[in-house]
Amino acid sequence: MIVVERVEELRARCDEARGAGKSVGLVPTMGFFHAGHRSLMGAARQATDFLVVTLFVNPTQFGPNEDLAAYPRDLEGDAAAAEAERVDVLFVPSVDEMYPHGAPRTVVHVAGLTEGLCGAARPVHFDGVTTVVTKLFSIVGPSTAFFGRKDFQQLAVIRRMTADLDLPVDVRGCPLVREPDGVAMSSRNAYLDDDERIAARVLSRALREAGDRVLAGERRSDVIEAGVRDLVAAQPLVALEYVEVRDARTLEPRDALDGEVVLAVAAQVGRARLIDNVVLRVDGSHVEVDLGVPAGERGTRSVP
Amino acid sequence: MIVVERVEELRARCDEARGAGKSVGLVPTMGFFHAGHRSLMGAARQATDFLVVTLFVNPTQFGPNEDLAAYPRDLEGDAAAAEAERVDVLFVPSVDEMYPHGAPRTVVHVAGLTEGLCGAARPVHFDGVTTVVTKLFSIVGPSTAFFGRKDFQQLAVIRRMTADLDLPVDVRGCPLVREPDGVAMSSRNAYLDDDERIAARVLSRALREAGDRVLAGERRSDVIEAGVRDLVAAQPLVALEYVEVRDARTLEPRDALDGEVVLAVAAQVGRARLIDNVVLRVDGSHVEVDLGVPAGERGTRSVP
Repeated sequence: MIVVERVEELRARCDEARGAGKSVGLVPTMGFFHAGHRSLMGAARQATDFLVVTLFVNPTQFGPNEDLAAYPRDLEGDAAAAEAERVDVLFVPSVDEMYPHGAPRTVVHVAGLTEGLCGAARPVHFDGVTTVVTKLFSIVGPSTAFFGRKDFQQLAVIRRMTADLDLPVDVRGCPLVREPDGVAMSSRNAYLDDDERIAARVLSRALREAGDRVLAGERRSDVIEAGVRDLVAAQPLVALEYVEVRDARTLEPRDALDGEVVLAVAAQVGRARLIDNVVLRVDGSHVEVDLGVPAGERGTRSVP
Repeated sequence: MIVVERVEELRARCDEARGAGKSVGLVPTMGFFHAGHRSLMGAARQATDFLVVTLFVNPTQFGPNEDLAAYPRDLEGDAAAAEAERVDVLFVPSVDEMYPHGAPRTVVHVAGLTEGLCGAARPVHFDGVTTVVTKLFSIVGPSTAFFGRKDFQQLAVIRRMTADLDLPVDVRGCPLVREPDGVAMSSRNAYLDDDERIAARVLSRALREAGDRVLAGERRSDVIEAGVRDLVAAQPLVALEYVEVRDARTLEPRDALDGEVVLAVAAQVGRARLIDNVVLRVDGSHVEVDLGVPAGERGTRSVP
């Protein structure tokens, strides 16, 4: 594995790989790798010939009162993890390298899908994400890019952007990965103290119970959402920001569960803003509940 | 030359050309070709191996009260002109082909450069331009794309967008082309009746006289702008929208002429909104006045 810091070197290496007939895979990340990131790298390693992982804590996707300065970093550990996943190039640009003219004048904005859910509390977030992902797609030229389903709204937004801009990239969603106690893997779990870490379990437990209710026949979104709200309210360390049933593709609100929907939550737990979701595929009385996958043996990192 | 109507066919043909080691050139247009368009095709034909000209009257770059429905069209004449310029592919997509999901959710926006000049009167225009150009860059994958300097602000905006999004395209500006009487070539000249067509000469004449004043030593932007304003005011068929001295690269206002600046005008003449400009390169007492080039013998089309 080589570590690359410059845009033009990354572009040249990817051009060279494509020129040699290799398919290029891209896993964009903000680093501090956990088993979720590593599962993306594993999927990308299997599916593509030349694997680029980017590690960039992108300032434009953080709001003015968010955790940009505190965001956890561990370049040495990340490089070791990427090497273990047989990554070809780890790209670690500086902010100046990605934005040589200062704050970018050009923004890629996806209307509609970005306005609710996390977009309500984080109004600039998705513009930052879609703009930097457009840049990374352009520099790397991947045939396939891999994103985790924990950031479900991000995945839907990027799919829409890729389709709307005719970007020649297959955007692949990969399973949400959970800790043994059910908590969704997140770099931000590092912010939690012991009590908060235990309290955070209520989110995945509430989603699991919601899935059970749907399996038992409940189809009303407001009833499902109220169930989550009640469970989380009983946990004083967890301040629910939203719980919503949405269409899994368009992210439009859904009054009733039918077809593929996502039940998504966000909550503040101590210093950490956490998100989680369950995807529900409802076809008459047949229901699939997709809560993601447990972390495999390899690649887990214990959270402080 | 082949005429292509589908995005995926265009992409496949460009992929094939690149795969065969050819450089791909792109000339994006809205059709109704005049000598200006043909000079872009000529420059592209010389500089690249596989030449794609796109002809798409893009609805998203027209405001609600603009001339989308009236915009002149002549596919047969355009195909003959493109063939004569040895274009490889003429791409003529339908609106549905370019926007299969209806009005696009995703917009590429360039802040700053799009707010003044034509952006003041046409608030959605440049978002439409930058978004469709991003799509065309993505579909065609050109090494070089060619734009006329008549649309000077558009060229500056696209250059900035291309740099900000790391798009691997060399954006080349080509000379503004003028009719024998000095009027800038424009598809919208077709809207003018005989009296308006004669009246329209005042714009290029005012720019030429402004250039003469700069050659004679004048460096104050307000004096130069006032000179243009006075000349145009004497022509009742021409309603000046703006006249401004701007930095040629950033498009920021400039109080004095120094370095490379553009003196740009827009005016309504009958049903036609016309734009024109002169680029001035000022280095102490040395001045270059770039008013563009006269139409060559070949490829001119008489304007009704």
